[in-house]
Amino acid sequence: MLEARLLQGSLLKKTVDAVKDLVNEGNFECSAAGIQLQAMDTSHVCLVTLMLRQDGFEHYRCDRNRTLGISIANLAKVLKCAGNDDVITLRAQDDSDSVTLIFESPKADRISDFDLKLMDIDSEHLGIPETEYSVDVRMPSSDFSRICKDLATIGDTVVVSATKEGIKFSASGDVGTGNITCKHNASVDKPDQATYIDITEPVSLSFALRYLNSFAKAAPLAASVKLCMSADLPVLVDYRIEDIGWVRFYLAPKIDDEEMDVGGGGAEEDDNE
Amino acid sequence: MLEARLLQGSLLKKTVDAVKDLVNEGNFECSAAGIQLQAMDTSHVCLVTLMLRQDGFEHYRCDRNRTLGISIANLAKVLKCAGNDDVITLRAQDDSDSVTLIFESPKADRISDFDLKLMDIDSEHLGIPETEYSVDVRMPSSDFSRICKDLATIGDTVVVSATKEGIKFSASGDVGTGNITCKHNASVDKPDQATYIDITEPVSLSFALRYLNSFAKAAPLAASVKLCMSADLPVLVDYRIEDIGWVRFYLAPKIDDEEMDVGGGGAEEDDNE
Amino acid sequence: MLEARLLQGSLLKKTVDAVKDLVNEGNFECSAAGIQLQAMDTSHVCLVTLMLRQDGFEHYRCDRNRTLGISIANLAKVLKCAGNDDVITLRAQDDSDSVTLIFESPKADRISDFDLKLMDIDSEHLGIPETEYSVDVRMPSSDFSRICKDLATIGDTVVVSATKEGIKFSASGDVGTGNITCKHNASVDKPDQATYIDITEPVSLSFALRYLNSFAKAAPLAASVKLCMSADLPVLVDYRIEDIGWVRFYLAPKIDDEEMDVGGGGAEEDDNE
Repeated sequence: MLEARLLQGSLLKKTVDAVKDLVNEGNFECSAAGIQLQAMDTSHVCLVTLMLRQDGFEHYRCDRNRTLGISIANLAKVLKCAGNDDVITLRAQDDSDSVTLIFESPKADRISDFDLKLMDIDSEHLGIPETEYSVDVRMPSSDFSRICKDLATIGDTVVVSATKEGIKFSASGDVGTGNITCKHNASVDKPDQATYIDITEPVSLSFALRYLNSFAKAAPLAASVKLCMSADLPVLVDYRIEDIGWVRFYLAPKIDDEEMDVGGGGAEEDDNE
Repeated sequence: MLEARLLQGSLLKKTVDAVKDLVNEGNFECSAAGIQLQAMDTSHVCLVTLMLRQDGFEHYRCDRNRTLGISIANLAKVLKCAGNDDVITLRAQDDSDSVTLIFESPKADRISDFDLKLMDIDSEHLGIPETEYSVDVRMPSSDFSRICKDLATIGDTVVVSATKEGIKFSASGDVGTGNITCKHNASVDKPDQATYIDITEPVSLSFALRYLNSFAKAAPLAASVKLCMSADLPVLVDYRIEDIGWVRFYLAPKIDDEEMDVGGGGAEEDDNE
Repeated sequence: MLEARLLQGSLLKKTVDAVKDLVNEGNFECSAAGIQLQAMDTSHVCLVTLMLRQDGFEHYRCDRNRTLGISIANLAKVLKCAGNDDVITLRAQDDSDSVTLIFESPKADRISDFDLKLMDIDSEHLGIPETEYSVDVRMPSSDFSRICKDLATIGDTVVVSATKEGIKFSASGDVGTGNITCKHNASVDKPDQATYIDITEPVSLSFALRYLNSFAKAAPLAASVKLCMSADLPVLVDYRIEDIGWVRFYLAPKIDDEEMDVGGGGAEEDDNE
């Protein structure tokens, strides 16, 4: 028997919304520690992981480890039927072939239950090594979303360059070239609005903007986002879900040398990705 | 001569918006009692009636009974040109082949008049028998709209089951199955937010969700909606327009026995309606 | 060297948005007086001019006259990347083949720079004679937008008739006919909400609504709009940009006599423009 009751049901809605464009279906690993998901996106380019820790639920019971294969698209459809203020409970009997989602309205005058069929999904669990990154940037998640969206009007690829002074996002294309620089800025009224840059070595990496724009859909989950980068390693884009867990995205850098020139010389790209 | 002046012109805008997706054209019967419309929807599945009583108008004059055949689509276009705070006057000379709509802005600094051509429309007036229904449910119109919209993401058909405890809406499809239950709840701050269930006999009926979703477009007219049901009879979905009349929709239940099982056993449906 | 720094960068964003649907590319004439643009729309039917005076900028320097040929579509894309509160600086080195736009966020923690390539654009500068118009109407720009949008649901052509009492906009089509009349009304709380009609001779002219609807996109620039009309002359639709300049549109009247009858007799039109 799995039973997990989340008072702030909107967190689950936002979590699934954050990954549904990248991942069609996934195995939710349920254990005493909580509920985890690890999945490649449909084009097998980036990796998505999410964690909902047991202590973030009002009530959490997981009698034995269980893998729930779920269509994320269908889960998102069902969660659309939950109100933003609803309490959401997940329940799965041992050996059942479905999972039940129960939505209770705040005044308990409306109760909904939805049964989702479970699926058998092939997937292998990747070990993700703990990494000390050369650069950790924490910035407002709305700024990151805005920058990725803006630069996508200029080009398909962004070069992200971090130095002690700031983090620079650059793109170029038919329109011209653009650079957006965010400076380290800890002296703001709200910590969420700060930009912290923690750096051991400057890094400059290129990424496909369309994936970053997909990651940015997680912004409603968290006021700030962390970008972790090291040379030749996938970037980690990390959204912390308050008091319960996280959604993390990993994307390998582009390694075409030509593209690395964008920041300096404004080279044209033929990247139609 | 017909002349009807409505201070709260937005009511007429909303009334026409409530029926325009179902009804392309209709005969507005004007008499000393007020203005009435009865029309089948374009697919001849459901019946729409509306009533605007003479005492709801600031000024109402109807010298002789008159049938105005009007294109609802064109009427809706013209009413889009009226501001939400405008006073609206309908005027038709005896034997004229057009009806004039006059919109006056609140400060009377903008006056618009639109002439709509009248049409000859074949239609027969159905007698609708007064019915004592087994179940009368009054619920917030926004809840009804939300439920119909949510369940339409699950399936094409809804089973509506009313008992003393509550009213349950159920659907099933490829995604899975879902049930939404609203409990009798009279103890709320605003009467409009209450759910009243008045029942002489439990009823369970199936309906095509696409029609209920069309009916639900009348929600801006009224904070609450009344559903009246009896076994084997069309449901009546009734929106009261404050101080002036109503919009009512009638829809026959689906009678496929298989579909009646949804609530109990989660039977699959092949309904592609 | 051209350098122009605009504290209220949103004005530049709105100015370019106001013309971008009509004009694909244009020559911005930069001189000691400021920055000017004159361009025909892509269908060569109407003329657009805009002026940004040097004294409206916080800092303005133009060492020598310069013509910057710019893709308005690309400029609009780049300006989308500027925040509404950003300070915007335009900079072009003498003889450079690009112009740089620099966006500074209010707290100066985010700085963006975009390079736009310059183009060679053929265009001849039209002399626009100073005209004493028979009719000057000043009205709320939102009213003008609303009227053009509303009447476009009725027909393709509007007849604008101005007398001392008011300005009447008329259209007709399959739906029927419509007239919207705005009265002279100077006694309002906010001057922006007034309608002033200054007239030496009544005028009645026909215009293609689709162009007026394009002009109306400039409404965010100014709370009021001025319409200047004389018989047989193009109408001038004039949006004043606070403290810095204007956007002006010129459109020749339609001269088909039949269409001139709309206001009086409700003649049918076959205008599919």
